[in-house]
Parts: sequence; structure tokens; C-alpha cells
Amino acid sequence: MAQRIVVVGGGAGGMGAAGAAKGTDPDAQIVVYTEFEDAAYSPCGIPYVHGKEIPDFERLFMATKQQYVDQGIDIHYETTVSAIDTKARTLTVDGRTEHYDKLVLATGWWYDAPKVPGGDLAGIYYMKNIRNAMEWDKKFDSVKAAVVHEAGPLGLEITTALAHRGIEVHLVDPSPWAMSMATDPDIAKVVEDSWEEMGVHLHFNTTLQEILGDDNGAVRGVVTSGGEIACDLFVVATDKVPSTTLGAKAGIKVGTAGGFIVDETMATSEPGVWAAGDCIEVPHGVSHIPWQGLSGSHAYSQGKVAGVNAAGGKRAYQPVFVPWGLAAGKWFVGGVSFSETIATALGIPYVMGKAQGISRARYYPDSKPIIVKLLAEPGTLKLIGAQMVGGEGIKERADFLAMAVRTGITLKDLATMENVYSPPIGALNEPIALAAQNALSRLGN
Amino acid sequence: MAQRIVVVGGGAGGMGAAGAAKGTDPDAQIVVYTEFEDAAYSPCGIPYVHGKEIPDFERLFMATKQQYVDQGIDIHYETTVSAIDTKARTLTVDGRTEHYDKLVLATGWWYDAPKVPGGDLAGIYYMKNIRNAMEWDKKFDSVKAAVVHEAGPLGLEITTALAHRGIEVHLVDPSPWAMSMATDPDIAKVVEDSWEEMGVHLHFNTTLQEILGDDNGAVRGVVTSGGEIACDLFVVATDKVPSTTLGAKAGIKVGTAGGFIVDETMATSEPGVWAAGDCIEVPHGVSHIPWQGLSGSHAYSQGKVAGVNAAGGKRAYQPVFVPWGLAAGKWFVGGVSFSETIATALGIPYVMGKAQGISRARYYPDSKPIIVKLLAEPGTLKLIGAQMVGGEGIKERADFLAMAVRTGITLKDLATMENVYSPPIGALNEPIALAAQNALSRLGN
Repeated sequence: MAQRIVVVGGGAGGMGAAGAAKGTDPDAQIVVYTEFEDAAYSPCGIPYVHGKEIPDFERLFMATKQQYVDQGIDIHYETTVSAIDTKARTLTVDGRTEHYDKLVLATGWWYDAPKVPGGDLAGIYYMKNIRNAMEWDKKFDSVKAAVVHEAGPLGLEITTALAHRGIEVHLVDPSPWAMSMATDPDIAKVVEDSWEEMGVHLHFNTTLQEILGDDNGAVRGVVTSGGEIACDLFVVATDKVPSTTLGAKAGIKVGTAGGFIVDETMATSEPGVWAAGDCIEVPHGVSHIPWQGLSGSHAYSQGKVAGVNAAGGKRAYQPVFVPWGLAAGKWFVGGVSFSETIATALGIPYVMGKAQGISRARYYPDSKPIIVKLLAEPGTLKLIGAQMVGGEGIKERADFLAMAVRTGITLKDLATMENVYSPPIGALNEPIALAAQNALSRLGN
Repeated sequence: MAQRIVVVGGGAGGMGAAGAAKGTDPDAQIVVYTEFEDAAYSPCGIPYVHGKEIPDFERLFMATKQQYVDQGIDIHYETTVSAIDTKARTLTVDGRTEHYDKLVLATGWWYDAPKVPGGDLAGIYYMKNIRNAMEWDKKFDSVKAAVVHEAGPLGLEITTALAHRGIEVHLVDPSPWAMSMATDPDIAKVVEDSWEEMGVHLHFNTTLQEILGDDNGAVRGVVTSGGEIACDLFVVATDKVPSTTLGAKAGIKVGTAGGFIVDETMATSEPGVWAAGDCIEVPHGVSHIPWQGLSGSHAYSQGKVAGVNAAGGKRAYQPVFVPWGLAAGKWFVGGVSFSETIATALGIPYVMGKAQGISRARYYPDSKPIIVKLLAEPGTLKLIGAQMVGGEGIKERADFLAMAVRTGITLKDLATMENVYSPPIGALNEPIALAAQNALSRLGN
């Protein structure tokens, strides 16, 4: 009899799992439950519709509901799974009891909601669900001033988007600089300076104390450690917190980073249950510390591993080195693994090199600066981290450097790397090589 | 007493050597002889001025003559070195005898001139020297039709440039497709199709038989194996041939690829003589076959190695894996090491994977397709070659994949690579990973 593989969650992790499970065992019955009206749209595109870089929300949908039907994936929308019995292999689905043979949890994440007076006002925007985003977007043309709370990846994206839209933006963050979990201040400053050119008001080292509402539940301002800011939009862009309540109630173990603990097959602590995406934590390849809150690409890859294994196949997920990148202010910023700040905080010793290069020949139109900063293990000189800020090519370089960290490529390798030189696409000297040469030069090599 | 280090040649190799020698031994007397009026401009930018992507030739100059004076580099322009005596350590310079302690030859390359009737017409354009290019450029506004002879890297660039300029272009090449020394027909076809959309006439499998001139030495057409083509401009874009006459006369050994043979320090067969750039050949890291005719970036890196060692320092050059990339037609095309065609010709066994991805989220403006084709060693699955064609990010991916070949990264590594996912700069799935997954899937993994 065909096995019944149930996936809870319709995001990148869940849909990756569903598709991979069907691919591995075409006879399996694949069921997806999602509490939302849609599956497989790109929530990552929402900031760019708000910023009007993308003209409408419809473009963010990746597959029609019929396409999933055609693939043999049975998606149940607006459906809530409220309990799991891992012994009986049953779920409580909208009050009914449903059987599963294999279960994949891809329950995602939710914001670390502001725990201040006014944090429960109805007029606070949590950017995540597309239908909700469509409703909020209609109000934005009349918004005069927005407070974005916290300068993590989503905060950087929505700050930039709202500034593009012509809204007065105040970015409030208790940290001393933007993306302080991944950047050093010298890298973040390039983005911050460009925000100031765009008219964004930066409030770092600033704690949110209260969100002020009017009688209708609308936001009229915030109180911070640095004073009061008037605003008519408050956007929550705090850290992603794994949504583990459903699984944890069923006894699935949660780790120190707050996500489900999984092995390399994405199996959880309970037999027959796999998990993927923002609800899990995975070991960082350098520090071996569990990390969570990665990208949709990570969620999708993890989902595929979970789906293959749940369906009876065999695939292993690798430790993560976390290449990241995004558009912020007038620049792209990105990196891999650690900054100096985080390496220092974790007690990881390093040597460092930094250089500024250009993305194309200096004389070619739209040539842009790129700053590259590299961290390596003392002695072996194996790369352990990178940060970059610049005009183009940040994503591809971050991907490269993540593989470099994973495979033990050294500063000496990078200092002598060959590079494409062609005026429209690349300069005589690759900025990564210049940064590696700088590191060796600091070491007296 | 300060040593006298003489460099012959003022291109990327020569100027890299001069600067590195001065950096290694600041007391050394550094002398550069060049037969041209200028040093250290970017000849690689010339096609883009012809194509009007770059507004003027002046932008291609990288340093003023005074800057070299300030650096303590003594450049002699329009100066010809006609003989070397490696025993006496002297040069014949404009008829005078000059002493050297160390010599670096960076004598570059010249075109494989067409050996057909009419090949000596004055009205044939050899794109190389900037002053000559400035004179030719003035004539281009009145040119109606151009024949570009051979579809190597320079041929692709000038074909694209002249088409941008609105000139009717005929690309004539005896090979069956464009860049056949580095691409397979499926990759080249994407570029060729875009040229046809731009109105370029492609004449592959076509041999040049005669260049037809008028009484003033101007070109009026060509005769080919496929018939006669009327044109008023003939551009030579044949392979680069190492300029070794001066060194070879002095007994410096030349190898099978036609360039000076050097060791990893860029030392030639003669004591006290180093060489760098297009006049040398270097071993390919996979095939161990000598390669020549690489990029300005290679020349500059080789020059630095030669300069450091000539000045008494120690630096080694690595075997090359030859990342390449350029703008051709409406696309960028590039790769590393081998195509299927060349691997087959060399008897190098391989497995292959190919996929089409996108450069940004599908819904983000200017998202472009990218086709990636990967070749790996059977068994170990170590990468040995790559080809790509697409809209952006070709240069950075080629640099990455060249390092991947050099360090033994496998298809399994690439199939599980992490990637940045952020709508403006990268898609959910990295095209390199998709191509590696395709290769594994073809192998039944």
C-alpha cells in the first residue's frame, strides 16, 4: 500500500519536501497542510513590491494550485494542524484525526514580537504573509513616517524599500550598527552612509520602550531610549524565531538555538518525523554552534533532504557556512560565516585582510567599488569568514567564499587566484585576491 | 651598487614586473623600454570605444607618465631593443649598448596575420595599439560593412562592438562555431542567435582566400570559400602569436605553444632573464599542456612574479586553469579550462552536467537566464571544465569554478553548495548547483 507522507507547512521547506518525496517515491500519497490561503509564493519578494521595484504581488506566486494537483501533491489550504501523536502516527487536522506514515515539519518561523507596551496594537505590520502584505501595501501611499524595528536582514530590506517609496524611515536598533550579527562596523558604515543620503534616520544603540497608539489601534509613534519618534507605520523586523510549538508539544527535541534538532538526514528526535526550514537548527561548519534563521534557499535544500529521506531515499545535508547577501541602501552587502565582531565574541582566533577593488574595468560604464574583508584561521590560513559591500557580484562571490570555507581553501590560494579580466564584467584585479594579498602582507608574507 | 633591472615591454606583463621589482628592491634601478608612445593603458578597452559603450580613448589610460616617474620607474618610450647578449648582460637599444643585471622580457604578442593574397594591404585593421585605434575609429562612422576575420575572444568583442555601432558585420571563421577553442556548439549558439538578431552575418566553416583592395590600398571586399563579401573594413582578429623573435635570437628557449619556456618563478632558459605575459607559455593545471594567449590579468600576475624574482625576492606562479569571460552579442559567455569538444580532442575522459537557471528571482526586474555546463573527471567527479552563457554573474562564477578545478572540488560539493538567495541578486537555486545535480542525476546518483 502506498505510504502517506504528510508535510506541515507550505513554504520553501515544506514544498521542497513535498516535491522531493514525490520524486523519490512516485507512488506515495503526498499531503501538505498549510494554515495560509497559498503555498509556494515568494515571501522574499514582498519588500520589493512595497518598494515598487516589482510592480505587483501577483508576480511573486511561483506555481498555480493546479500545478501541484498535476504533480500529485495534495495541498490543503487554510488548514490547521493542532496536535501530533508520534506513537500513533496521527495528526489532529482542523479537529479531525488523520493518519501519517512519515511526517515532515516545516512550520517556519515568526517574529520575536516587541515585548513593550503597545506591542499588541493592531496597527503593527509583521511582514510575512502575502495577502496581509497586499492589504498593508494599499495603506503605504498615505504613510508619512515609518519606524522599522531592528536592523537584521529583513529590517535592511524593508528600510530600503520604504525609503525608495518616499516614506520617511526611522530604523531603530539596540545594536551599535546594521546587521551586527554578520557585519563589522566598517562594512556596515558604507550601507549606513548611503541610507543617510537617501534620507533614512538611523537610531542605533537605541532601545524600543513603547509603541504609542491612537483610539483606533493605529500607531502614532514610539518611545525609545533616545526619545520619541512620531510615525504612522511600525514594521516589526526582529529576529526570526523558529515556530516549534506544535512539534515540541509532541515531544520533538528543540535545541539551544530554539529550532528542532535534526541529524544530517533532517530526522528529528522522534521516529518517523523529519523537519526542515526555519523551524530547525543546523550546525555551523566552522564553529559547530547550531544556527537557525537561514535563507529560503537553505529551507528549500533542507526540505529536499527531508523529503527524500522521509520517502525512503537517502540524502545528507551538509553543515552550513551561510553565504548571505542583500540589497541595502544604495549597495549590496553580503558575506559568509563570521565577522571580526562575532569571531571575537565566540573566541575564534583569526587573521584578517581587506581591500577595495572594482566590479568592472575602471573606465567601463557602471563600474562600482567592492570592499572585501576576509578572515582566516591563524597558521593554516584557511578561510573562515568574509564580508563584502559593493555594487555588483556580491552574491556570486559569497557563494564562492562559502564553498572556500567548506573545502579549506586558504588565503594563499585566494591571493594567487586566476580571474576573468574583461572590461564590461571584470577588472584586472579581483577584489577577493586583493583582500587575500592584503592579509598575507599584514602577516609579513 | 644598485642593481639595474630592465624590462622590455610596457604592457600589463611589463608594467607588473617593473612595479613588483621596485616594490621588492626599492634601491634597484628599474628601466622599461617600449616601442610605443605609451605604457599602461588598457588595450582591452579598445573594442568598447569602437562600440561607443565607452565615450573616449582617453579613459583607457591608467597612469600618467609622471606617476611612473614618481614611482621611480624609468620608462623609455618609442625605443626599440634589437638584440640581447645574455652572457655580457647587455642590450642593443636604438643602436646603443646598455647593461642590465636582470632582464624581464614582456614582449607580448602579434596577430597571426592572414597569409592570403591582399594580406599586406595597408587598409587592414589590426586592433592593438591605442594611437592606431584612435586613427581607425575616426573612419568607422563612414564604414558600411566590415569583415571580422576569426571568432576568437577579440573577434567576438569587435564583432559585437561594430554591430553596436551600426556597421554591417560579417564574421568569417574556418571553425564550425564561435570560440570553438573554448566552447561547445550548444553554448556558442546562444551568442550566435543573438548576433543574428543584431543583424550580424555569420560565416562559419568558411576559409578566407583573398582580401581585395582598391588602387589606394583600401579594402573593398574578401573572397572566401563561401563566396565574395563586399566590405570597406577588414579587421584581423586571429589568434595571438607570442612575440619571441628578440629573445629567441638570444638563445632563450621557445616551447611547443610558441612562447618562451619559463619555470614557476618565470625564469627563462637563460640565467638572469625572466619573462611574463603573452610572450610566454605556461602549463595548464589539468592537461599539463603548455598554454599561451591568456588575459591581461594573467600577464599582470606573471609580471609581478617575474619582477619579484628578478629583484631577488621569491614568488611562485601557479599552473593555470584559465577562467575566461566576455561580452558577445547580447550575452556574456565564459568558462574554465575545457569544453566537451576540446576534452574529446585531447583524449581527456569526462562526465557532463548542464542546467539553465536564472540570475535573480524570476519576478525581479532584469532577471536573466544563465546556462551552466560542467565537466568532471569520471570516478573522482573532480571538476575539470565549465562553460556558461547568460545575462550576469559569468565572471564571478568562472573565477569560482577555476578555483574549484584547481583545488579538486567535486560535482558532489557543487551539487550541495549553499547559495545566497535574495531577489535582487540571486535566485532560490544557484545555476552551478543545478548543473552539478544534473550531472549526478545522469550518473544515476
